[in-house]
Order: sequence, then structure tokens, then C-alpha cells
Amino acid sequence: MQQVALTDQLHLSRIIYGWWRLMSWDMNTKAIEQRIEECLALGITSHDHADIYGDYLCEASFGRALKNRPDLREKIQLVSKCGIQLVSPQRPHHARKNYDTGYAHIVASAEQSLINLNTEFLDLLLIHRPDPLMDVDDMAGAFENLQQAGKVGAFGVSNFSVSEFNLLQSRLSFPLVTNQMEISVLHHASFHDGSLHQAQQLKRAPMAWSALAGGRLFSGDDSQAKNVRDALEQIASDIGAQGIDQIALAWLLKHPANIMPIVGSQSLARIQAASDSLNIPLSRAQWYTIWEAAGGELP
Amino acid sequence: MQQVALTDQLHLSRIIYGWWRLMSWDMNTKAIEQRIEECLALGITSHDHADIYGDYLCEASFGRALKNRPDLREKIQLVSKCGIQLVSPQRPHHARKNYDTGYAHIVASAEQSLINLNTEFLDLLLIHRPDPLMDVDDMAGAFENLQQAGKVGAFGVSNFSVSEFNLLQSRLSFPLVTNQMEISVLHHASFHDGSLHQAQQLKRAPMAWSALAGGRLFSGDDSQAKNVRDALEQIASDIGAQGIDQIALAWLLKHPANIMPIVGSQSLARIQAASDSLNIPLSRAQWYTIWEAAGGELP
Amino acid sequence: MQQVALTDQLHLSRIIYGWWRLMSWDMNTKAIEQRIEECLALGITSHDHADIYGDYLCEASFGRALKNRPDLREKIQLVSKCGIQLVSPQRPHHARKNYDTGYAHIVASAEQSLINLNTEFLDLLLIHRPDPLMDVDDMAGAFENLQQAGKVGAFGVSNFSVSEFNLLQSRLSFPLVTNQMEISVLHHASFHDGSLHQAQQLKRAPMAWSALAGGRLFSGDDSQAKNVRDALEQIASDIGAQGIDQIALAWLLKHPANIMPIVGSQSLARIQAASDSLNIPLSRAQWYTIWEAAGGELP
Repeated sequence: MQQVALTDQLHLSRIIYGWWRLMSWDMNTKAIEQRIEECLALGITSHDHADIYGDYLCEASFGRALKNRPDLREKIQLVSKCGIQLVSPQRPHHARKNYDTGYAHIVASAEQSLINLNTEFLDLLLIHRPDPLMDVDDMAGAFENLQQAGKVGAFGVSNFSVSEFNLLQSRLSFPLVTNQMEISVLHHASFHDGSLHQAQQLKRAPMAWSALAGGRLFSGDDSQAKNVRDALEQIASDIGAQGIDQIALAWLLKHPANIMPIVGSQSLARIQAASDSLNIPLSRAQWYTIWEAAGGELP
Repeated sequence: MQQVALTDQLHLSRIIYGWWRLMSWDMNTKAIEQRIEECLALGITSHDHADIYGDYLCEASFGRALKNRPDLREKIQLVSKCGIQLVSPQRPHHARKNYDTGYAHIVASAEQSLINLNTEFLDLLLIHRPDPLMDVDDMAGAFENLQQAGKVGAFGVSNFSVSEFNLLQSRLSFPLVTNQMEISVLHHASFHDGSLHQAQQLKRAPMAWSALAGGRLFSGDDSQAKNVRDALEQIASDIGAQGIDQIALAWLLKHPANIMPIVGSQSLARIQAASDSLNIPLSRAQWYTIWEAAGGELP
Repeated sequence: MQQVALTDQLHLSRIIYGWWRLMSWDMNTKAIEQRIEECLALGITSHDHADIYGDYLCEASFGRALKNRPDLREKIQLVSKCGIQLVSPQRPHHARKNYDTGYAHIVASAEQSLINLNTEFLDLLLIHRPDPLMDVDDMAGAFENLQQAGKVGAFGVSNFSVSEFNLLQSRLSFPLVTNQMEISVLHHASFHDGSLHQAQQLKRAPMAWSALAGGRLFSGDDSQAKNVRDALEQIASDIGAQGIDQIALAWLLKHPANIMPIVGSQSLARIQAASDSLNIPLSRAQWYTIWEAAGGELP
């Protein structure tokens, strides 16, 4: 599988495996080890986490697999996130949902992710959401602390607007390597708000969350979802693809921004299909057909 | 007539003649030659084309005049555009309307424009519309190819947002010399979306399409059109102008961005009136009266 | 009180006194002198004016106090603005409300402000509103004229968008030191349009006008105002603050952009309360509670 170089040291697999639904999958530690190996066999080496996934339980569950199989660690890249504080039995001191992008919380959250994941090193740490109260000098200090301690290799953001990205970048001596944003055949915001143009201009490949638009792609009954599904089905049939999800991913992969879709399916068949989508070269006509089916304009 | 220097080599006349409606004018080759000369007599030396105008027939029609009168070529500047693919009897292989801003299409389209226009050289080539799928490295390669072959002198864009302009510019070793956008007394989008500020900041004079707002200026019966028409009529009367179109153009010309209106009228009288609008100095009070009549705010 | 350094020479007090309602206060010259001294006692050294405040009468009224008490001048910073032309008995030649950001008007308006304020020097001059017709080269010339003549120390803007700020800044050899914008618990536009991010990125502390949202904070009966008032009252009660206005100001002061609220109250008690708000450290939870009460999102 294609690898995307975010820095000289950090290469992610073009398709990234997403673990945010792990706690609903009822997967035991053995099954998680097996899934990591199945992904490796497909060339999917990068794994997307966040402190808060699974109500703060997801990283530790994954970490038990790494504890059993420490040999796997050097074969994969671990991505995590911080900055959101949820009300949760796991965090009884949180009285309400907050953001916290202060020095102390970033460092503490990253260190807790290391403990939970049974690793000494995060390949990539993302700020989960832009914080209206973010003190970028404070954040830069936290990043430098974690980097110098060898705890985090690279830093990025998620859901940041152009001005938020520029603001944080202005305080750093190293590049923010990615902006993880919602992009899918059904979600075009990043095409219109400048964030995808920014990623292209800076040559920072974006990660795409909800790359298959959640359940809407398969079962949404709003007109946008139906129109796009019809278009995807037609193209899948024309090409002989395994399903509309392959076409939806191929649509992201064709874009020159080097979008890295996160796929969070429990089904091995779907992961294989996602991996195979890299071999589906859509034509421009097919790409714009989907664009227009979703309401995109071609004046 | 005032000339606007886009580069050391490329000067356009402040008023540009637009040929997009040529095929509906029923003008024969002789009449086109005469129109070019009439424009020259007024100092209008720049001619705006696009591959797709007149369902792909416009450039060739104009080109027959240049074939008859090769002496005219060095007295004028030719602007063309590419990047849109229409379904047309002239392009039977186009199954649907697409954009194509890839290397092969840009080069092929520009070379076809040269053939059609009976010229060896385009003064200026514009990308007609921002393409959501545009690969700016690919585009930059096409530009360099055309420039090094001496086929195109300068490059620009049309209808590009600020981030789209910055993205493409970031890959070029020479400036994008203009952004051709819709600007008129009835269309203020570029005042609000940053694109006109960008043009001013970079000192890249924009070209204005639909500079007279099409038929709406003269006959639109929506309240914006009526209010603006009333304001223009009052000012035309106060000044003793020939008509409201002169005031509408003077409104664009007063703006410090050095806007170059494209005038696409078949009527020589209207072209003369447009040319004369350069001598109509609106006061600030008149300018804001029109601004407010169109719904612009002065908080 | 905290001072904010806008340049090496120019420091403003974190809370700024606003005089725009002076003409409705029925304050005589003696009372104005006393108010300046009361502010000084609180550490409020910066005074916000504009040519047009009080229908062009406010600066002269304030200036009579400075004439009586020239010793006060060196203890305070004077901020004024220009660029709007109102229809007024004081300006009988104004036929309609206009903006004028041309060289002649900026210089003339600033010089008139000096006469009215009985001072030889404005610490800071702001362009009051972005002018759709602004010629930034012309403006830059006016700024240089005023600066070289020693009449104005520093320049800034008010209500400028990101692209407007960048445009004007691009023509200046010195920084625009601030953007005075509307920011309050009830007005979040600058959080979303990039202007607050720009201020943070450039480290240009913004001034906040309508920092207490005018009367809406205390008596607005729309749902946003009611929700925010409820949240402020709860927090004021929890903290033991003197009133909701203190919490509304503390909310601005907590933001890392170093926002300088302008307080324009006639009541000395309210000014003291505003000054004391600097000592109210809101928690993140309190800050986001207010953010959400006003309709802000924390996805």
C-alpha cells in the first residue's frame, strides 16, 4: 500500500485504521492483535485513536494487545488526540464537557495515552478540536515538552479552520503535519472553506474522518444521500467494484491533496475492500458525476 | 485610452472587448475586421475569448478575420481561457460537462485556441473556473510548457477564490497576472469574499465579466435592479451622461483595484459610450449612493 | 492596572475608557476633568474617541478639560478615529453619509481632532470602518504624513476583516497596532471570521467595542441575552462578583488575544467594577458555560 510521508521520519499508510468504535465491537485482546496483523498484511500500518474514544476506554483496550505483542509496535504508527474533556465515569472530576488545550492538559493527556497504549512514543498527536480559548504559546510549549522528551514524534490538528491552523503554526518551529477533517462524498465543507486548499498549498496531506459518511452513505434517505448512492451504484456497476464504499473512497483518493481516509469498520471484508479502492482509478467524468450528485456545482 | 500594465510585456486596454456573444450577432468576417478596427480607434486593444464561447465556434470566427488581416495581430492583445468541457456537437467525445485542468487538456486547449484564432501566441491564458479536482503541480507544468514554447505570454485565472488563487500561485515561478471575476453595480460578491482585496494587495488588476450585469441593469424588475437603475438614472441625469451603462462602468473604474471591465456589446454606440465612461469622474457621494442602492452597507 | 504594549512607545491600559456617549451625559468640563482623574486613580489611562462621536462634539468637550488641565495630557493616551462622514449641523457640507478614507480627509480629520482635543499629538488613530472604496496607497501616504509631522504616534483600524487588514498592512512600513472590533459575550463574530485569530497570530491586541453588548446584556429579552444573563448571574453569585458586567468583562479578559475592553459608562461605580474584573479569574468551565449559553458550540 502507498505510504504518505508527513515528515522524513513519519510515514502513514494511505488508508488508516480507525478505532473510535472499538468499545462497541466487543473485540477481545486476541482479536485486536489479529486485527492489527490483518491490517499489516494489507499494508495498513497506521492506527487512529483519541484519548476520549470509547468513553476513554479505547486506547487501553488497544494497549493490552500491544502489551501481549510488543513486536507489533515498531511495525505500526500510532495517532492520538487530546483537547476535549468529556463528562464520564472515567473522569469523575469533569463537571461538564470542556475543551482544554492548555499546557498541563496536553502533556498529561498525551502521557496518559502512552500509558494506556502501552507504548513509549506516539507517532502523531493531534489537537482534537479548535478551542475558542486556545493559547497557542501555551500549546507550543506543551508540544516542545513532549517532543524533547521523545514522547511524541509529530503534531497536527483536527477540524481546524485555515486561520486556526495558521495561528497555531505561527508559534511552532516545526510543521503541523496534518489537519484531520471530515471529508466524504457527502461532506464537502473542506472544499469550500479553504482548508483543503491550504492542505494542498502547504503539502500537508489531510486525514479524512467519517470518510464513508457514517451510515448515511448506505442507508441515508435524504435526497443528497440517495442521489449520491445512485451515482455510486452506477459507477460501481460500470467498473465492477465490490461496493459503493470502494467508489466513495476512490473519490477521495483521486483528489490531488493526498487525502488519507480513516476506515473504522469491524468487518475484515470491508477493510480489504477499502484497501483495494486504491486500485480503482476514477475518471474525471465519474468524479464530477459524484460531485454533482452531492450538490456540488460546476458552473 | 488608459493601458493597464499586467507585466512589463503585457499591457491591456482599461476597457476590454468581449466576444462571448459573437455567434449570436450574425457578424461576418468583414464585420469582425471592422469591429477590431473600430475598437482600435477607441484605444480598445484587448479582446477576451474562451475556448468554449459560442459553443466552441467563437474563436475560429474571430480567427478568420485575423487571417484576412494579419496586420491587426500585433496591435491587439488576445485573452483566452480553458478548463471547462461542454457537451457539444463540436466535441462529440464529451459525454457530460466536466472541468479538466490537467496538463494534457490545458496544453491541447491552448494549442487549439492558437489554431482557431490564427495566431502563434496568446497574450494571456486564464483558467476559466476553479476546479475542485485541480492538481496545481500539473497545471504549473502545463503553464511552463506553453510559456517556454512561446505560445502563451502570461497566465491568470477566472472566478478563483482567495485560497484557490494562493494555491495555484504557490506552484508558479511567475505571477498570475489577473483574476477575471464577476463585478458590477449589481454583483458585489468580490467586495465581501476577499478576492478584490487580494487583487489590490497583490496589485493584480482584475478583469470584470458581466460588468453591466447582463440585461438586469436595463430591464431587471427585482428591487435591487430597480433601485440601482433609479440611482444610475439620477446620476446620469445630474452629470449629463449618455446612459446608465456609462455610470455603471464609471462606478467600476473609480475603484482603486484598477478593474478592467469587459464590454461585450454588438452596438458601436455602446462601445463608444463605454470608452467615454473613463472620462466620468464619479464623486464619493455618487459612488456610495449606488453602493447603497444595491444593498451595500455603510454602517 | 495591566498595561498592554502595542509598540515600544505606546502602552494602553487594559481597560479603556470610552467617551462616545459623553454628549448624552450632561457632564461639564469640571466633571470631565474629575472623570479623567478618577480613571487615572484606577489605572485607566487610555481614552477612546472618534471624530464623529456626539455628532462631532465629543472631542471638543473633552478637549476643554485638557485645556484646563494640560498636566493630564502626558498621563493619558488619546485614541481617535476617522473615515466616516455624517450628515450633521456640524458638517453642513455633507449631503449624505459617506466614508472617506482618502489622503485629504484622513489628514484633515486628524488635524481637526488635535484642535478639538487641545493636544498636539494623538497616541493612536484608527480608520473607523473598512471603506469599500479604500485606496490603501493613498491611506498609507496620509499615515506617513501624520507620523512624520509628529501628529500621530501609531495607526490601527476598526471593524476590518482579515483581508482588509492584510491589504492595508501591505502598504505600510510600520504595523497596524490594533483592530478595534465588536466583541462581547453576546457577539462572537470575531471568533468565527478569522479576525480574532489574526490578532492573536500577529500579536496585535484588539480593542473591544460594545464590550458589554450595550443594554442587551442587562435587559435584552431575546433568548440569547436571557440565557447568557442567567449564566452570568449564576457565575457572579458563585464567585461573589459585584454584577454580571464584571463576569462579562472577565470573559473577554481571559481570552489569550489580550482583548482590551472599552467601557463607556457614566457611573463611577461601574468603572470601578470594570477595573476590578481584571482580578476575576474565570475557570475554563465557567468560560465555556458562557460560550455555550450564547450559542457557541463545543462539538
